[in-house]
Amino acid sequence: MEHTQIRPPERAVFRYQSVVELIRKQIDAGTLRPGDRLPSLRSLGSKMGLSVPTVRQAYLELERLEWIEARPKSGYFVRPRTANALVRKTSRRNEPVRVCCRDLLDDVHDAIHRPGILPLGVSNPTMALPATKTLHRAMKRVMSAAEERAFAYAPTSGDPSLKRQLAYRYLAQGLQVDPDEIIITNGAQEAMALALQCVASPGDVIAVESPTYFGLLELIETLGMRALEIETCPLEGVEVTALEAALDGHRVAACMFSSAINNPLGSRLPADNRRRIVELLEARNVPLIEDDVYGDLVFDGDRPLPARAFAKKGSVITCSSFSKTVAPGYRIGWVVPGESGAELVKLKRAVSCSSGLLQQLTLAEFLGSGDFDRYLRRLIPVLRDNAERMSCAVARAFPDHTRLSQPRGGSVLWVEVPGIDAVALFREALAHGVSIMPGTVFAARHRYRSFMRLSYGHPWSDKIEAGIERLGALAKAQL
Amino acid sequence: MEHTQIRPPERAVFRYQSVVELIRKQIDAGTLRPGDRLPSLRSLGSKMGLSVPTVRQAYLELERLEWIEARPKSGYFVRPRTANALVRKTSRRNEPVRVCCRDLLDDVHDAIHRPGILPLGVSNPTMALPATKTLHRAMKRVMSAAEERAFAYAPTSGDPSLKRQLAYRYLAQGLQVDPDEIIITNGAQEAMALALQCVASPGDVIAVESPTYFGLLELIETLGMRALEIETCPLEGVEVTALEAALDGHRVAACMFSSAINNPLGSRLPADNRRRIVELLEARNVPLIEDDVYGDLVFDGDRPLPARAFAKKGSVITCSSFSKTVAPGYRIGWVVPGESGAELVKLKRAVSCSSGLLQQLTLAEFLGSGDFDRYLRRLIPVLRDNAERMSCAVARAFPDHTRLSQPRGGSVLWVEVPGIDAVALFREALAHGVSIMPGTVFAARHRYRSFMRLSYGHPWSDKIEAGIERLGALAKAQL
Repeated sequence: MEHTQIRPPERAVFRYQSVVELIRKQIDAGTLRPGDRLPSLRSLGSKMGLSVPTVRQAYLELERLEWIEARPKSGYFVRPRTANALVRKTSRRNEPVRVCCRDLLDDVHDAIHRPGILPLGVSNPTMALPATKTLHRAMKRVMSAAEERAFAYAPTSGDPSLKRQLAYRYLAQGLQVDPDEIIITNGAQEAMALALQCVASPGDVIAVESPTYFGLLELIETLGMRALEIETCPLEGVEVTALEAALDGHRVAACMFSSAINNPLGSRLPADNRRRIVELLEARNVPLIEDDVYGDLVFDGDRPLPARAFAKKGSVITCSSFSKTVAPGYRIGWVVPGESGAELVKLKRAVSCSSGLLQQLTLAEFLGSGDFDRYLRRLIPVLRDNAERMSCAVARAFPDHTRLSQPRGGSVLWVEVPGIDAVALFREALAHGVSIMPGTVFAARHRYRSFMRLSYGHPWSDKIEAGIERLGALAKAQL
Repeated sequence: MEHTQIRPPERAVFRYQSVVELIRKQIDAGTLRPGDRLPSLRSLGSKMGLSVPTVRQAYLELERLEWIEARPKSGYFVRPRTANALVRKTSRRNEPVRVCCRDLLDDVHDAIHRPGILPLGVSNPTMALPATKTLHRAMKRVMSAAEERAFAYAPTSGDPSLKRQLAYRYLAQGLQVDPDEIIITNGAQEAMALALQCVASPGDVIAVESPTYFGLLELIETLGMRALEIETCPLEGVEVTALEAALDGHRVAACMFSSAINNPLGSRLPADNRRRIVELLEARNVPLIEDDVYGDLVFDGDRPLPARAFAKKGSVITCSSFSKTVAPGYRIGWVVPGESGAELVKLKRAVSCSSGLLQQLTLAEFLGSGDFDRYLRRLIPVLRDNAERMSCAVARAFPDHTRLSQPRGGSVLWVEVPGIDAVALFREALAHGVSIMPGTVFAARHRYRSFMRLSYGHPWSDKIEAGIERLGALAKAQL
């Protein structure tokens, strides 16, 4: 074995090395592309006249060299040749600030809905594998069964059948939620808006991740509150020690954190951190509004428990929706409000009366029939593959020193190109038919100027690949 | 002719008098019931061996005696034997007050959705003649044509196809509205909530009709504003002179008035009053938020122009929805915001992102195909008949001195029973399987204790008739 170690590998004295060389050449030439699956051990062995153990040895060597990777029960895949991973945390020196992102959001939203634009700016996971036919069928069943009832007013807190299905799902996660406690909303955005108004007032300080979903920042801006941005790790979400320091330094009225996957980072908050955050906040009587919309879209399939699972008091408000998992246009979300329930349902009634009944009945049917779980099982691998493909495409097309997030779920990639102005890039890209989400909208103000969020929540296509190439060229031109 | 005048009518000397007696006896016996159509002149004449002019003379006599009434192009109908009409206006001495109706509304809403309860409390005109099949067909056409697009996010301001259809409708009324100006909302309730937050702040004084729709009062309470209740005529809506005096006496931040039909009064604001109100408010730079949800449901079919038709500035905000005309559960309304547009669309995005796309596309199809107009033409006569039937049923069953509104459109009757406690009646009636809307929720506080609102927006049935009898018995028992 010592002998082997000094022999230069390019001479391919061992038979497995010929396999290593072959695969490396194919990857270099672009025949095998990042994300592609390698032939099975058996099939490659029989084609090359080699034994299975020999091919396995080659694959293990390629894996050690980080050219390929094994995925449980799926085989071996060409690894993305990523740009540098994004690992830098945000600055520690934070003060509460008035948010200022609404005007840019006007332009960004307008761009998303402009016809003929490649919409890489919008996080729309369900578009990667639309559930159109199954959902249509569920709705038709509901229309036949419910007749005119399908057009009536739903109760303010939502239809009991959907609330029951949601409670079942929580139970399957080991979480006891009373169906009567759940309040159905017009998407998670209304859920968060109602929750925030129940626990905080204009001028109050709201702790958020940095970067965080622009919808939360816009809400804080609209309600005249202030944002306190907490250091957030690109891999593991909000930093517990940074949160503790912020709570010591400021009178925080509420926290709004993603409980599983951060948008735009794709980071995943470890269970132990969720527990520590809840303990920290309960000890100080600070309500936690958790945004759980991406919880069902973690790539490893191990659905994280919402933070409320660790709560001993009633001050965790859990918000989620079906917008990221199946039907954005249905505008159906929900909130498990804890002790804010009585106030929240009154607020909901005053500002929007109730939510669409037909969509609620359809989703109850979709969940109850098992269609929802079957769909999620198909959707997640598509998103995971898309994430890799987009990472590779960006790594190929973008300037050197570009840094990428490594999403653990969801449908967006967070990209830093040091030196660029992403707002300018947004406008240039739009003129070239591509919309992106510039980084600045993910911060209260003056941050993430060289960042952008790209969505891979679309069926992968040459058009998207070409869009990424164009973005890369525009970014290079800027530098 | 002098001779005729002194002859006692019961002796039926003239042949037409035999017809008069016959009809009166049939009405007394309940064979002919209020709202029933009388035989045509020709058919009754031929059956009784009388000439058409003789029968016509009888009908004219019965009309003069107020037993029957002619309806243009429809023939003669048995008149409702109404209780005393409600004509008293509300007190002139008003000060702005904090609203206090939310807690009672919890119980009232809960009652509406309780299974097995006769829901006379909820204003639900479309239930009188559900458009189920036509709407289902429109939705199926949309699902086939739009495919996965039907599940995507709608633009924040709404789908262009629906906005175009709404602009067409305004144009048909002689009103120029740019489709791009319209913002689609989650029902009129969200429209009103967004509008009010754009033009007023906590503590501000909002002028409303008295009585007015409880949803507006709840909104004012929720937003921490104060209500200034303006005297309102049971026949012609808000009193312009009372409004002028209120504006002189108080710093009013905004007015929220129904532009066509008041809920609960069923009164109809004359066009000239709409014009005068707009002039009055424009001269003082006070925004008008008009609630036009019942505009398409006036009984005489002569659709009133929204108040914005009289505006010379941009401070009239028009709110409406499809909840009262076709599909309450769709939760689709809209707002024509005038100069508040840019702010209002940002607010909408922050609090609910956008409204359901599939429902928007379905309604665009329903309007574009002509189904909507055809449906309204069928619905209105049903509501008008129901109004009469309910008036008669209440007049028969309720205590003497009961006073009734005379709705000019919409689906509710406003009933005063001097001396009763309507909140207690609400609770007693609920125990007997009937829900009503107690009058107190239509006032900021401490008013309309002896009033209730009853909805006739259901297909008329023996069950409803029995419910009214039960209500009457409970009211009598209270006195």
